[in-house]
Amino acid sequence: IETAVALVSGGKADGIVTAPIHKEALSLAGYSDPGHTEMLGRLTGSKKVGMFFWSESLSVALLTTHLSMREALRKIRCKQVLAKLVFFDSEWERFFGKRARIALAALNPHAGEGGRFGVEETKELQPAIEMAREKGLLIDGPIPADTVFAMTMAGKYDFVFCLYHDQGTVPIKLVCRRQSVNVTFGLPFIRTSVDHGTAMDIAGKWSASPESLLAAIRLAARLACC
Amino acid sequence: IETAVALVSGGKADGIVTAPIHKEALSLAGYSDPGHTEMLGRLTGSKKVGMFFWSESLSVALLTTHLSMREALRKIRCKQVLAKLVFFDSEWERFFGKRARIALAALNPHAGEGGRFGVEETKELQPAIEMAREKGLLIDGPIPADTVFAMTMAGKYDFVFCLYHDQGTVPIKLVCRRQSVNVTFGLPFIRTSVDHGTAMDIAGKWSASPESLLAAIRLAARLACC
Repeated sequence: IETAVALVSGGKADGIVTAPIHKEALSLAGYSDPGHTEMLGRLTGSKKVGMFFWSESLSVALLTTHLSMREALRKIRCKQVLAKLVFFDSEWERFFGKRARIALAALNPHAGEGGRFGVEETKELQPAIEMAREKGLLIDGPIPADTVFAMTMAGKYDFVFCLYHDQGTVPIKLVCRRQSVNVTFGLPFIRTSVDHGTAMDIAGKWSASPESLLAAIRLAARLACC
Repeated sequence: IETAVALVSGGKADGIVTAPIHKEALSLAGYSDPGHTEMLGRLTGSKKVGMFFWSESLSVALLTTHLSMREALRKIRCKQVLAKLVFFDSEWERFFGKRARIALAALNPHAGEGGRFGVEETKELQPAIEMAREKGLLIDGPIPADTVFAMTMAGKYDFVFCLYHDQGTVPIKLVCRRQSVNVTFGLPFIRTSVDHGTAMDIAGKWSASPESLLAAIRLAARLACC
């Protein structure tokens, strides 16, 4: 990966596509980075990176990633939500060359039903959306999670801003199986990755599917031409 | 609804299919029940009712329903999980005439990765699964939420036991749009319902789809023949 970063930094490549990495093996090899994304952040001095899943039919941005639900709930604060919205909005524009139409998913059932089933929508998310609009973002929400993905797939939005890991990964893996690509936002170059792990259980059995890797390569090539 | 309950109780009908109810209108009419399900529970003296969504390709049972995420997290306790598993298992057998193969969805990303991203899987869910197995239940889990639905749709399980409202409703509404049926478990008779609300915004416009209501009627008829 150090070589890949050197190639991109030296202008010899336009981006990096990564295959899955075995996190335990990485740790045993003496690296403290939990994975490729953190390693790339460190090597490029990027302070802020964001996880984004792209596919032809549905794309999602994640506010929080590898945190327990309890910890993720603590991060659903107006300030953090606004900062991440602005980040994903500007990165999307940089990669795709136009302003994104964003749908923000609600946390609670029925988007909290006006505070009856939770206060995050009224106390944190709605103020964040209002401030984001003042900054020029094209954003709607909070929209109940069990309707926002169908609306986005129907073409109303470019991506759904999701509040926790599974809120984004469950729908995208269900509707775009093996066709979704993990894109790292916030690096000085294009980086795409497969949406799955190493699957050591099928190593050497010739049953692994290359579909997600092919999709990752195709998206990196497409973004490089933007 | 009182008439419907009287007909079923008197043996003149085998079950009840409900259309959506306008919850505000119900309240203005002097009823304190939040909806049909609670009303039916009260009229039949059923102590325990459970929300279940059925469709041809995917079915889900819910541990918690109309609660904020914060409150739902507090209910993810071994004892409650075990009680609800036993309840859904026996009700499924009563309705469908065979023992269910159940998949339990994890709460945290990657099912907590051995405690790194949350402790509910190791502290609450695994013990509940072990106790459920001792009682004879056919159950696997906790399975990461972003793989369990595809596994279930592939035929490995009869339904996914979900921990919070949106964990179950997001996937079923995405893969079985307008074809999923809300079945109330725990009543002395069959009760199915549409999976949507009243949609007052399209009232009188002749654009409402009867698909979910038709699916609810078909499932009720099928269960009555079991």
